[in-house]
Amino acid sequence: MSGTRVDGLLLGIDFGGTKMAIGVADADGRLLAHRRVPTHADRGAPQALERALGLAGELLAGVGGPLVAAGVASPGVIRPDGIDLAPNVPGWERLRLADAVRDALDVPRVAVDNDLNAAALAELRLGALRDADPGLVVGIGTGVAAAVTIGGAVVAGHRGAAGEIGYAVAGGPWPGTMLELDFSGRALDGLAEELGLPDGAAGLAAAAERPGPARDALAARVDEVARHLVTCCLLLDPQRVVLVGGVARNALIRGLLVDRLTEVLPHRPDVVLSRFADDAALLGALTLAREAVPAPR
Amino acid sequence: MSGTRVDGLLLGIDFGGTKMAIGVADADGRLLAHRRVPTHADRGAPQALERALGLAGELLAGVGGPLVAAGVASPGVIRPDGIDLAPNVPGWERLRLADAVRDALDVPRVAVDNDLNAAALAELRLGALRDADPGLVVGIGTGVAAAVTIGGAVVAGHRGAAGEIGYAVAGGPWPGTMLELDFSGRALDGLAEELGLPDGAAGLAAAAERPGPARDALAARVDEVARHLVTCCLLLDPQRVVLVGGVARNALIRGLLVDRLTEVLPHRPDVVLSRFADDAALLGALTLAREAVPAPR
Repeated sequence: MSGTRVDGLLLGIDFGGTKMAIGVADADGRLLAHRRVPTHADRGAPQALERALGLAGELLAGVGGPLVAAGVASPGVIRPDGIDLAPNVPGWERLRLADAVRDALDVPRVAVDNDLNAAALAELRLGALRDADPGLVVGIGTGVAAAVTIGGAVVAGHRGAAGEIGYAVAGGPWPGTMLELDFSGRALDGLAEELGLPDGAAGLAAAAERPGPARDALAARVDEVARHLVTCCLLLDPQRVVLVGGVARNALIRGLLVDRLTEVLPHRPDVVLSRFADDAALLGALTLAREAVPAPR
Repeated sequence: MSGTRVDGLLLGIDFGGTKMAIGVADADGRLLAHRRVPTHADRGAPQALERALGLAGELLAGVGGPLVAAGVASPGVIRPDGIDLAPNVPGWERLRLADAVRDALDVPRVAVDNDLNAAALAELRLGALRDADPGLVVGIGTGVAAAVTIGGAVVAGHRGAAGEIGYAVAGGPWPGTMLELDFSGRALDGLAEELGLPDGAAGLAAAAERPGPARDALAARVDEVARHLVTCCLLLDPQRVVLVGGVARNALIRGLLVDRLTEVLPHRPDVVLSRFADDAALLGALTLAREAVPAPR
């Protein structure tokens, strides 16, 4: 983590639709302790938040030292009094995340941002976008979203909603399907079930390794997400595209997607997998925390 | 035109796929004389450039005074030794536009940019994007393209190719059709011919005023361009979308398009028509010229 030196500990929390990660780092951003636990989204938002804050308290107590700032990454569009466009965790829309973290942990500075924006910030400061401009981060995990970096900053958009491409219009006559319902971990779990395959998206990807109905069905879904990523690349002309999320980490799916982009883009960006595996949004949350601390004079 | 005061005249040239505009402005950016003539793209690029430079010379001689800077707007991606992605004017790819203008008019400063980027610069400095961020400019005329403004600047992209959404993958199974071949003035001329309607795109739009096959065919094409503009809006969350170009000026087409965006976007941007009618790129070229002159010390 580059930038200002701070005294004390930094806390990062990444709320995902499937898993949550909590990490404590020192002033230089070195991760000292972290935990990853299931979100249990179907049980609602309050229990997830409560468990995350409990774990954060345990990690902080174990490491010891004053907490100076916290950063929180969440799906959706973060407002002071709630969160929009985060349908994967029921009740999330009514959470006042920054207030809850501030009150529970008695920490003066709390920064909250969208999880893909946080991942993009981590890529800008520590990862694949340090030397690339513009940058496009595409997250394909439980949901589908993106983030844009230009001139060393993450583009927020007018209402903080830049990157919400999961709402794109996919497939068939208007209004088709929402892209996220067509191509996300959850959507591919559904497709596996339709095809009678075990193990959800992972089972589908395994069956698609050889030609046949599973491959054809998966390739058709990849074509749809590729169509929208082509439009995003044409609009921005990014130097590098960074893929994050569980679905994007599947080599077969990534290969099919990159092939499609290569076929049609007149200027092909460098497409790479995030080097942070599951941790891009957590590292982004820690970077948000670090950048929330004023520089010493 | 805001910014630096310059002494002498500014020249702007806007090369379009159908028409070219040449304008001479004073130091404050007031248009003193201008001409608009057909490009005759089918006769090739050199004759178009030669006629534009001839007209520029005539206009400058008529106004009188020293020429201090020229700005040129052109379709495609401008390189020092040529232009990429400008298929509508045969031979355009080999033109060294800046050199040709500098040599023919003996002007020390020549700035060249993509025509939609120039239009976006005019909107930023003089038009609908002065008070909106991010901004998205969508040009639907002879071709289809876009430009993005963030933080008071036009986004160039890594290779200067940001905004080339005419290459998007439209319609049907992969790889479908290029968006520009599906929805542009030229594409709609072709659709009118298929339907046996006179007067090209204008005749199609007139026939589509009432329900029937012309309306259905036009609406299906609008759906396709709307799908891609939805993705662009989701990616950027623009405060305002500015439409430019002859096809976008048709009220029926614009209405159908805005209806589609409204239906699916969770955060609807303000969608307006450029106040510059045909002149957005020409005013942008003059702004490029003005901003090419160093500020006095």
